Amino acid sequence: MVGTGFAVSARDGAARAGRLETGRGAVQTPAFMPVGTAATVKGMLPGAVRETGAEIILGNTYHLMLRPGAERVARLGGLHPFMNWPGPILTDSGGFQVMSLAQLRKLDESGVTFQSHIDGTRHHLTPERSVEIQRLLDADITMVLDECTRWPVEEPEAADSMRLSMRWAARSKEAFAPRAGYGLFGIVQGSVFQALREESAKALVEIGFDGYAIGGLAVGEGWETTEQALDVTVPFLPDDRPRYLMGVGRPEDMVGAVRRGIDMFDCVLPTRSGRTGKAFTRRGEINIRNARHAEDPRPIDEACGCPACRDYGRAYLHHLFKADEMLGPILLTWHNLSYYQDLMRALRDAIGAGRLDAYAAAFAAEQAKGDIEPL
Amino acid sequence: MVGTGFAVSARDGAARAGRLETGRGAVQTPAFMPVGTAATVKGMLPGAVRETGAEIILGNTYHLMLRPGAERVARLGGLHPFMNWPGPILTDSGGFQVMSLAQLRKLDESGVTFQSHIDGTRHHLTPERSVEIQRLLDADITMVLDECTRWPVEEPEAADSMRLSMRWAARSKEAFAPRAGYGLFGIVQGSVFQALREESAKALVEIGFDGYAIGGLAVGEGWETTEQALDVTVPFLPDDRPRYLMGVGRPEDMVGAVRRGIDMFDCVLPTRSGRTGKAFTRRGEINIRNARHAEDPRPIDEACGCPACRDYGRAYLHHLFKADEMLGPILLTWHNLSYYQDLMRALRDAIGAGRLDAYAAAFAAEQAKGDIEPL
Repeated sequence: MVGTGFAVSARDGAARAGRLETGRGAVQTPAFMPVGTAATVKGMLPGAVRETGAEIILGNTYHLMLRPGAERVARLGGLHPFMNWPGPILTDSGGFQVMSLAQLRKLDESGVTFQSHIDGTRHHLTPERSVEIQRLLDADITMVLDECTRWPVEEPEAADSMRLSMRWAARSKEAFAPRAGYGLFGIVQGSVFQALREESAKALVEIGFDGYAIGGLAVGEGWETTEQALDVTVPFLPDDRPRYLMGVGRPEDMVGAVRRGIDMFDCVLPTRSGRTGKAFTRRGEINIRNARHAEDPRPIDEACGCPACRDYGRAYLHHLFKADEMLGPILLTWHNLSYYQDLMRALRDAIGAGRLDAYAAAFAAEQAKGDIEPL
Repeated sequence: MVGTGFAVSARDGAARAGRLETGRGAVQTPAFMPVGTAATVKGMLPGAVRETGAEIILGNTYHLMLRPGAERVARLGGLHPFMNWPGPILTDSGGFQVMSLAQLRKLDESGVTFQSHIDGTRHHLTPERSVEIQRLLDADITMVLDECTRWPVEEPEAADSMRLSMRWAARSKEAFAPRAGYGLFGIVQGSVFQALREESAKALVEIGFDGYAIGGLAVGEGWETTEQALDVTVPFLPDDRPRYLMGVGRPEDMVGAVRRGIDMFDCVLPTRSGRTGKAFTRRGEINIRNARHAEDPRPIDEACGCPACRDYGRAYLHHLFKADEMLGPILLTWHNLSYYQDLMRALRDAIGAGRLDAYAAAFAAEQAKGDIEPL
């Protein structure tokens, strides 16, 4: 096969359960991709990431092009042996981080010029260079360079920004060398404007991609607006290709997005929250630094089988964070990634059983209960 | 059995290989105890610590009494379930850290008063309270409270300090409730003065302990002087009890100490060095942050079976430290602890085979070669 494959195995309303096929293995969808920004999922060995259930991870082109550098990674055999992750890797295009992290950025038709936030060196990122970097990294799924439209924005500016992204998408497709097992995904833009989302989706389908991402959402517009944008975008995407909602999100938001036909997610939330002492549970989020956990021998979530819940009580985890011990972030990251993967598994199972509405209702009811009673 | 047991299984010159028996399992000697200061070996899950070969770890009474507090640990079932380390734990007495970390400390016959370096609270640590704290923690091996004599020091002051420690040792023995599988170790003081070391050793033997530590060495006096102090101390210690050289040390120093009859060690060096990018190898120490490792795909030490060496090249480890990624300290800590445990295993094997001199010579020759040639 040229490109990646995708097969839907079950449907429940707009939701689908399926299988994304890459040259480095299959990914069951709905799938959550842990973020491995700088060639590491922070604090986790790859084997531990895999143990949580993750079948694909995400790498950040912006960070990797600056350090250690795409050419260096290529000389070392690519990202997979470099970081010891043998499974599929999706890399973003660098566009989002250039906008959020880089300095002195300047955008024109050709691409974007910026200064590294690490050492001030100047770089020029074009659609062609982004594709080349991702090839050097040996990414299994390459994302097209796009401009992540700022929020809030007026419609004319959103239209100009989206159309630039569509021209870049065509150049990316042109630059991408098709290979068996490797995929290229386009990214729908258009902010919250229905007509622009439709125009963008149609433009991408016209170019033709292995998968379609929805970008520029969950950037501050509010979740209800995000869902409305999904509702007017998804119908214009091909049914036989995976749909990836970038940068999302909170557990409840992913449930809502899956019900609207989304297949893939990535987000720093489980890893970043874990590092600051926040843990996701069936019954909502808790902050393990809170004093009420100081003598609580119970696990974060007794339904969870991760090492943090299996081997430790809240009191110990609380102590680790109070004492600034590395093992605290390690264990809570592990827990949160497990929670996210367990949620994806439950969504796949619910779709397979045709019980997604009931699952979503039970999920919301459980979350609303809040944390277990203090001892 | 009341107390801990110890049996020598092989001898080679002054060196011994043996077995320390505790209620939570046996420890093969010579043994290195990784330091788990605040109820965690920094950055390592207990299972990983055990995988390196460690059979016993050390906890710090000073840190644990301040945070989370000995009574709290006791209410949570003791240190072992709290931190998920089912094997033996030796706790120090708190004396050394009071001297090196606490503020406004004041020492008198009764004990030492100090302010916590964490929150400024005042504490009074006596030999009796130190034994009680270690019982609350449920330490398998309790250390007597001593005064770690400062360096440099004149003989009269060293004598006063040592004799105070001996009176405290007697009070500790009195306060310690003998239990099957739990041991109490005395600590020889006397700085570098032969007569004082002899007097101290004899005083402790007169009181009677399950094991004998040698304290107040490797505090700046130079390794040759340390070895001389060992030479004049060890002969006065009972042959049928384990001997523990506290706070040591560098790999080459442990080889020298084992040849002088030492059975146990603890040191922060492998863990602390690992966190700052330093790795121990058969051919000496390297700093992985050094630019010459930036594109080197070879492992730190191809003779090592730890995950850092088995799964990664130096280039990746270099990248992790440059990018301040947690996985760098995690992997180098793992490597260094593996190196230390491999060294202990090799020393035990060499003693068992009656080849310790040859082993020590080969060890020194290999170390002198320095790191492998750059690519």
